[in-house]
Amino acid sequence: MIHYHLDTSIETLERTECDHLLAANSLGRVAFVDGDVPNILPVNYALFEDTIVFRTAPGHKLSAIPMHHVAFEIDGREGNETAWSVVVQGQAREVTTAVGERYDRLRAADLPTFAPGDKDHWIAIESAGVSGRRLRLGIKAD
Amino acid sequence: MIHYHLDTSIETLERTECDHLLAANSLGRVAFVDGDVPNILPVNYALFEDTIVFRTAPGHKLSAIPMHHVAFEIDGREGNETAWSVVVQGQAREVTTAVGERYDRLRAADLPTFAPGDKDHWIAIESAGVSGRRLRLGIKAD
Repeated sequence: MIHYHLDTSIETLERTECDHLLAANSLGRVAFVDGDVPNILPVNYALFEDTIVFRTAPGHKLSAIPMHHVAFEIDGREGNETAWSVVVQGQAREVTTAVGERYDRLRAADLPTFAPGDKDHWIAIESAGVSGRRLRLGIKAD
Repeated sequence: MIHYHLDTSIETLERTECDHLLAANSLGRVAFVDGDVPNILPVNYALFEDTIVFRTAPGHKLSAIPMHHVAFEIDGREGNETAWSVVVQGQAREVTTAVGERYDRLRAADLPTFAPGDKDHWIAIESAGVSGRRLRLGIKAD
């Protein structure tokens, strides 16, 4: 009788691979605290140098106060047997009117929006930490 | 000269369609507050009646305290021109040892895990609110 078990492993991703995945994707999710309660918002984003940039609608809670702790996440599958995720934790702040050549370039990014409408609030996440992992799942006889 | 503009709209999803999408998918993300700081965790989940169920590893922050406010999110694309997302807000609590026939059936779910390892903590999210939206993006001449 053959017994099967899951042959699984978790691989921690190098920072360079996290950066590559952040640069290669465009759909992420931002988790933030609204009052005492967490909320989560899917966003289209761009990576500008080390900064994650996205736009929100006027009046959105994320643009209502100047600074937020956030967690930003992307994930994906590579075929049926591998999945990966990258999480960035940091501070989100509105940079719609931030002054400086860096912000001018940041706001020139061609940034599609997940939700259509007036998206005139630019939010930047200054990363305080990046972590990533890849998971391999496979069936193996023992 | 033809001018093009984005013809965009947001459609709020009916609860029945949110439930259908929750039943039809298996990869979601849980946002929770860890101290004062939001965090986000990709999970494989199952929908059991109205309850979202997933497993975490022993020692994970989500299983360290009995109850959490969480936001749970799934999203996807339908071709290049439509995207959707569903967000469930509610209370997450560990039900690993919860007593009752309902919990026995819940823990009998065939629930693959996103991260392999010892996944002997069962977490259930009792929904306090479900919202969903579908976004259509199209180019239209005016």
